[in-house]
Amino acid sequence: MDKRLAELSWDAPLNFLGLPEGDAPSLEHAGVVMLPVPYEATVSYMGGTRFGPRRILEASRAIELYDHELDTEPYRVGVHTLPELLLTGAGPEAALAELRTAFDALLADGRFIIMLGGEHSISAPPIEAHAARLGNRRLSVLQLDAHGDLRAEYEGTPFSHACVMYRVHEAVTLVPVGIRAITAEERRLIREKEIPTIFAHELDPEEHWIERALEALGPDVYVTIDIDYFDPGLVPATGTPEPGGGTWYPTLRLLERVFAERNVVGADLVELAPLPGIVAPDFLAAKLAYKLVAYHQRARDAARRR
Amino acid sequence: MDKRLAELSWDAPLNFLGLPEGDAPSLEHAGVVMLPVPYEATVSYMGGTRFGPRRILEASRAIELYDHELDTEPYRVGVHTLPELLLTGAGPEAALAELRTAFDALLADGRFIIMLGGEHSISAPPIEAHAARLGNRRLSVLQLDAHGDLRAEYEGTPFSHACVMYRVHEAVTLVPVGIRAITAEERRLIREKEIPTIFAHELDPEEHWIERALEALGPDVYVTIDIDYFDPGLVPATGTPEPGGGTWYPTLRLLERVFAERNVVGADLVELAPLPGIVAPDFLAAKLAYKLVAYHQRARDAARRR
Amino acid sequence: MDKRLAELSWDAPLNFLGLPEGDAPSLEHAGVVMLPVPYEATVSYMGGTRFGPRRILEASRAIELYDHELDTEPYRVGVHTLPELLLTGAGPEAALAELRTAFDALLADGRFIIMLGGEHSISAPPIEAHAARLGNRRLSVLQLDAHGDLRAEYEGTPFSHACVMYRVHEAVTLVPVGIRAITAEERRLIREKEIPTIFAHELDPEEHWIERALEALGPDVYVTIDIDYFDPGLVPATGTPEPGGGTWYPTLRLLERVFAERNVVGADLVELAPLPGIVAPDFLAAKLAYKLVAYHQRARDAARRR
Amino acid sequence: MDKRLAELSWDAPLNFLGLPEGDAPSLEHAGVVMLPVPYEATVSYMGGTRFGPRRILEASRAIELYDHELDTEPYRVGVHTLPELLLTGAGPEAALAELRTAFDALLADGRFIIMLGGEHSISAPPIEAHAARLGNRRLSVLQLDAHGDLRAEYEGTPFSHACVMYRVHEAVTLVPVGIRAITAEERRLIREKEIPTIFAHELDPEEHWIERALEALGPDVYVTIDIDYFDPGLVPATGTPEPGGGTWYPTLRLLERVFAERNVVGADLVELAPLPGIVAPDFLAAKLAYKLVAYHQRARDAARRR
Amino acid sequence: MDKRLAELSWDAPLNFLGLPEGDAPSLEHAGVVMLPVPYEATVSYMGGTRFGPRRILEASRAIELYDHELDTEPYRVGVHTLPELLLTGAGPEAALAELRTAFDALLADGRFIIMLGGEHSISAPPIEAHAARLGNRRLSVLQLDAHGDLRAEYEGTPFSHACVMYRVHEAVTLVPVGIRAITAEERRLIREKEIPTIFAHELDPEEHWIERALEALGPDVYVTIDIDYFDPGLVPATGTPEPGGGTWYPTLRLLERVFAERNVVGADLVELAPLPGIVAPDFLAAKLAYKLVAYHQRARDAARRR
Amino acid sequence: MDKRLAELSWDAPLNFLGLPEGDAPSLEHAGVVMLPVPYEATVSYMGGTRFGPRRILEASRAIELYDHELDTEPYRVGVHTLPELLLTGAGPEAALAELRTAFDALLADGRFIIMLGGEHSISAPPIEAHAARLGNRRLSVLQLDAHGDLRAEYEGTPFSHACVMYRVHEAVTLVPVGIRAITAEERRLIREKEIPTIFAHELDPEEHWIERALEALGPDVYVTIDIDYFDPGLVPATGTPEPGGGTWYPTLRLLERVFAERNVVGADLVELAPLPGIVAPDFLAAKLAYKLVAYHQRARDAARRR
Repeated sequence: MDKRLAELSWDAPLNFLGLPEGDAPSLEHAGVVMLPVPYEATVSYMGGTRFGPRRILEASRAIELYDHELDTEPYRVGVHTLPELLLTGAGPEAALAELRTAFDALLADGRFIIMLGGEHSISAPPIEAHAARLGNRRLSVLQLDAHGDLRAEYEGTPFSHACVMYRVHEAVTLVPVGIRAITAEERRLIREKEIPTIFAHELDPEEHWIERALEALGPDVYVTIDIDYFDPGLVPATGTPEPGGGTWYPTLRLLERVFAERNVVGADLVELAPLPGIVAPDFLAAKLAYKLVAYHQRARDAARRR
Repeated sequence: MDKRLAELSWDAPLNFLGLPEGDAPSLEHAGVVMLPVPYEATVSYMGGTRFGPRRILEASRAIELYDHELDTEPYRVGVHTLPELLLTGAGPEAALAELRTAFDALLADGRFIIMLGGEHSISAPPIEAHAARLGNRRLSVLQLDAHGDLRAEYEGTPFSHACVMYRVHEAVTLVPVGIRAITAEERRLIREKEIPTIFAHELDPEEHWIERALEALGPDVYVTIDIDYFDPGLVPATGTPEPGGGTWYPTLRLLERVFAERNVVGADLVELAPLPGIVAPDFLAAKLAYKLVAYHQRARDAARRR
Repeated sequence: MDKRLAELSWDAPLNFLGLPEGDAPSLEHAGVVMLPVPYEATVSYMGGTRFGPRRILEASRAIELYDHELDTEPYRVGVHTLPELLLTGAGPEAALAELRTAFDALLADGRFIIMLGGEHSISAPPIEAHAARLGNRRLSVLQLDAHGDLRAEYEGTPFSHACVMYRVHEAVTLVPVGIRAITAEERRLIREKEIPTIFAHELDPEEHWIERALEALGPDVYVTIDIDYFDPGLVPATGTPEPGGGTWYPTLRLLERVFAERNVVGADLVELAPLPGIVAPDFLAAKLAYKLVAYHQRARDAARRR
Repeated sequence: MDKRLAELSWDAPLNFLGLPEGDAPSLEHAGVVMLPVPYEATVSYMGGTRFGPRRILEASRAIELYDHELDTEPYRVGVHTLPELLLTGAGPEAALAELRTAFDALLADGRFIIMLGGEHSISAPPIEAHAARLGNRRLSVLQLDAHGDLRAEYEGTPFSHACVMYRVHEAVTLVPVGIRAITAEERRLIREKEIPTIFAHELDPEEHWIERALEALGPDVYVTIDIDYFDPGLVPATGTPEPGGGTWYPTLRLLERVFAERNVVGADLVELAPLPGIVAPDFLAAKLAYKLVAYHQRARDAARRR
Repeated sequence: MDKRLAELSWDAPLNFLGLPEGDAPSLEHAGVVMLPVPYEATVSYMGGTRFGPRRILEASRAIELYDHELDTEPYRVGVHTLPELLLTGAGPEAALAELRTAFDALLADGRFIIMLGGEHSISAPPIEAHAARLGNRRLSVLQLDAHGDLRAEYEGTPFSHACVMYRVHEAVTLVPVGIRAITAEERRLIREKEIPTIFAHELDPEEHWIERALEALGPDVYVTIDIDYFDPGLVPATGTPEPGGGTWYPTLRLLERVFAERNVVGADLVELAPLPGIVAPDFLAAKLAYKLVAYHQRARDAARRR
Repeated sequence: MDKRLAELSWDAPLNFLGLPEGDAPSLEHAGVVMLPVPYEATVSYMGGTRFGPRRILEASRAIELYDHELDTEPYRVGVHTLPELLLTGAGPEAALAELRTAFDALLADGRFIIMLGGEHSISAPPIEAHAARLGNRRLSVLQLDAHGDLRAEYEGTPFSHACVMYRVHEAVTLVPVGIRAITAEERRLIREKEIPTIFAHELDPEEHWIERALEALGPDVYVTIDIDYFDPGLVPATGTPEPGGGTWYPTLRLLERVFAERNVVGADLVELAPLPGIVAPDFLAAKLAYKLVAYHQRARDAARRR
């Protein structure tokens, strides 16, 4: 590029954090990979989750690279943002199979993938892929969510967002947190299978629930965050907002400890359904995703020092 | 209907909870009656309360029928939803007289009516109707609200939403909770008449205010909830949102105890002024209305067991 | 119902035109059946077509029952509104098969079905069902649309909204009108198959295009209207709005003549993706749907007089 | 004010056109008086007309004072903007009586009042006041409107916006233009009373309709413009938008001739229901109001020259 | 004005609190002056701060004049609202110089100015003006904010909103509260200069942070409130909303004590970027501004009693 | 990339038309360069032009690459999209100087630059750069616009969007089209300098105005399109929407002829101020920009054949 042009100020690319070329490694050299999956097919009350990944990336470009709570610059772990993965429109089963293919190809030792959704049904393939990689070790799944998502079938398909945790609940140790909307059938399943559920009204200010969650989790953990876990006062931008949800700092404290005290193998953040002209929920989601990067970085560094 | 058609999936009617025909009793057999009154005539800062009932019904169809906090299915009490009652446009006095007629006709032993507004002025007729039915027993009114609504007249009429509690304050024991916007005159009235008001800044985390409210209430209680009682962070969808309002779980705890420890004869939920494209306040209102059904059901069952 | 209640004014049910019970016949006795199909699965630029049918019904309740252009009251033909038909979430192929089942069950002599979408992919089943009923007589399809929808496959499936006319173009005589966005491949297909396409820039003020369209249509016609046919100045509420579209009165003149001079067997109106708080496009769609009822009524009456 | 302050740039007051003090005469010396009446009481599909006058004033501050079509600066006629007139909330009859009082007090020789609404019911008092002032001379009313507003009663009151022209149709010569939504009863009334109605589908490009309107109008004319007269593509911001309405330049041509060839005694512009964040309809309304000022100025100047 | 007109109800002028003429003193006699500065020039993520002052004034007209927490009517201190001050478009340096001129001309003994922004860069001129007036006494600045605003330069200029506190940090004692987004460079500056920063995650429920803030403040204090200090759940209407911010009552407790225990010389409230159709943040800002009036009034009265 | 990954479907990059890598040449090999300049500094009624370029790029990815009116695939000319050019926040003079630098560096023989704004003030630098390159040949500027933009100074600066054409009117032959809002001073300037202005009310259906515009243009033309040229019914998304503007097809016919019959050296499209959630104006702008590409391509090909 012409030197005169190079001296001007050009906007950063639309990747996570808006990293200029020098700061964003290639996929091969990345420590963290952001995988946007704007998949929206099965129906909830309000739509729009397909716009979630885009809006998270846009907001991420305005958040500070420095994390003053941890006194680190987490992006230095090396963050690569993939293009949006467009799953087939041929139906949820085929779409999720494609996503499984993607994860099988992307997962590699030391590479940490954060998937940005899209609707919650897309969490099953990465969970299954991680569980498969662990072999005999049983994966735990920390599910931050307002809904149980434990239905066997919904709207004619077992691949609905309302079924995603049912699909994996036998194969993994499921730890739902923040739940405040379930069916009687889901309640029965929770009791029968003794799924260690922390309901939203149990999120006590003394934070005993954080201990409970940690105790329920095994050594290897996948974190799936349905953004509707948060109180709709903080995140109204979701399909079926349920009052009485999680808040910012306690949730960070939970996540910080899970990353510090467990081996977190992967994570996703789904169900943001952006509202036109209202960016606060986008910022919360973007900052939360960056916190996942930060906690992962610190855990990796701690592991290396051991 | 043709058998092939019957096997397809058809959307539920637009009643409270979206109950299919088999689950929604007729008016005659209903335990709970939802009465939508989209009345909006006297003016507040932002308009739109006429759309409140419709949006509450719409959101209610997406909330779970099972209440995991109470471990019950409250809809089994039998919920009938009336069509929207359209009051005359001839002026507030005539409109409220029509509403009084409706309540006189609807009230019957064992039938619990939840009115969905609409502006707050519509609460006077049901309060007066219930007070009349009680005869010598003095009705208490639990008023969850940001505003006193204790003006003698407003904008040329004593039938304004800003006057609704003034209209009834002599005839009933009024217990306002969450108040944070009143005039000097209203303050004087509160002092003179010793109206046991719990201001919003007195909603202490230790919840002594719940005890105070219960103590002030007599045995028979009507509950009127102006949705602006809630913090605008949770419910921005109201005409004159005042910062510093009530929150979800403490409010539920108050209501649960009022239904358990008093004889609640009726209730309303008013002043939701829906925002285009933002459904979180609708969900809060719908879930709150369902909590009223749940608490009523439990109280009725407890009464029957006695 | 209590006489006092019966004398009050209650809102009409949420059917097309908001007809009170006495004016809305049962399915069996209906001359026109409105079938809302809020199906939205394959992806366009903006979403929201699933809310189209609801918003059309809501707007329809505010339009006048009297048609002053025709000096008739078209609702007297007897309009029955079915509940929303919820198609399976198992994928587009299965969903469209369900819809075909519905049409096979609904179609009966003398009953005119107007389907309200929903995305355009749902037009294939009714077209195929009507074509099948006609036997040897070849069905013509008048397609008002901005897009060709003539792709063989889109986003991994031949059941996409972008393929709907490709699916039927061999079996019927297709007459696309208002087209202004097609691929080079679609252009080739139009040339090869000599599909008599009237592009949007050919909609001349002298209305020769109306003659051209009529000439291209055979005696039996199905009318499918993608709302994006209209200029986005009139209907911005659609997924991929293309400038330079159709206008109100010329379009009515075309439709009036098609109904008068051909045997129109069925119709649909799809792809309205309502905008929060903006109802003008909903009104246009509702009034257009009522015009279809009116033109059908007049054609039926004319046929009976013959 | 301190000289340093006086040299800074301070925003103009919120009057029509944002005229600085020197350019805006007092009420006594005004040639044109803008009277904002944010009255909204009887109900239409969407609300918000109470915000109309405010938004028109705001937009008016951004339109040019110079009219290049007439090559004049119409504000030099002397425009005074009154504060918003708040009518009583005691019901439509009392409110309209207050408005009549206002007009009786405001009308004076040579003073031209343009009322900005608010809902259409407020047009009756000024029409009646002007008719009374004319004594034996019969007032003509040019009504630009989508709806007939010729119902005897609506929603329990003869003072509804839907009845405003019925209220005056006996006392004045009514000339409705742009009508495209009426009931069968209104149609009958139009026929019986031979009200010279120009329906919207009769607004021919050759503009014969302008001649027809002029011919129907007597020498003294009041102009009432319901903003829903315009096509919703231009003005979606209204309560019940009907497709197929009036356009900008032809409407100006009609108004220009009416002011030039008749004695226009007063005017109003009502039913703008502003959309959040969308100002184009506000600009159209503001510019239209300024055109009324301009045409009035020219007519007055022409009269003086005679 | 005609007596008949005077008896009608006319809307209050668009000043702070909507005070009628009798209750709003002239600039000369005002105890408190509201200075709206709709300046928006340097760029943040979302725009719109230029509309902040207008929306605060509009909302202020609907808040109660009586403060029930303090049992006073703070407007009696005498509030004068200036017109919006329009700063030059010639660039930020010239614009801020104009604003400095305004403050030099406006500041006078006993007059308390509350500036309503506009973007945060406008806080530097009043801070510098106040610091200059104090002479040898060092001004303290209480900065409620999500962002440090401590960059030396941003987007090519040291006059950006992101630099406003850097501009003054040498000359005053800066006490930032609620900070949760800073760069590594800003963090270094805070450490080097020992700026007594209270980060948002340090806002403990026991409110030790209030003590810390008070201890850090000297006797003379200017209060600058960037509305993004508040949690985006309460105030989503800002350019770069950061999760985890301040809440209503604790913030009031801090401000109440600062006014009571320090000499507060001036204040501003900036960065409200109003959302179309959502007024809750406007109300919070308006009520907060009125609280500043109230605390100032009480402090002044206490000072007089001493 | 892993073969399994390569076989999946990944979203196109955010360039104009969403061209995959193979179809988008480098800057060096590009025939057409899209230069997005999200500059917004001087103030209009509504803000948001900084979001214009982004929204045009986003919409462009959904428009068809094939142009059926010309029967070509214009992208084959080779379109390169630069990142957004961020101009300094130090004030308009410095910002526009930066932009001039960019154009001096970018302009090269055979390369056609289309700038996407941003506010209109940015058109001066490219016009001046093109004029300088032409040497003795006088550049003509075809200005499609609602406003004259012929003020010598506005809001304290000669670099405002309202002055952009004044800045260049001496050096070039200015041909404004669609003008419908000017000051008396601008009108005088037009008369004095005999600027061949085609006012909006002169856009006759017989399209004589197209001839007039062509006649006024010299052999070398720069095209600047302020999107507010179009009727607000088509493009409400602009800062000061003026009723009575240009329409789609006639505007295309003008542009097609200008490119065919003149040497068009460059173009810009500015002042789109996108509305949240409403994409129709974005599509119109994107499609218009692509038409510029198409007309340029055809002109270039024609020139080569000569």
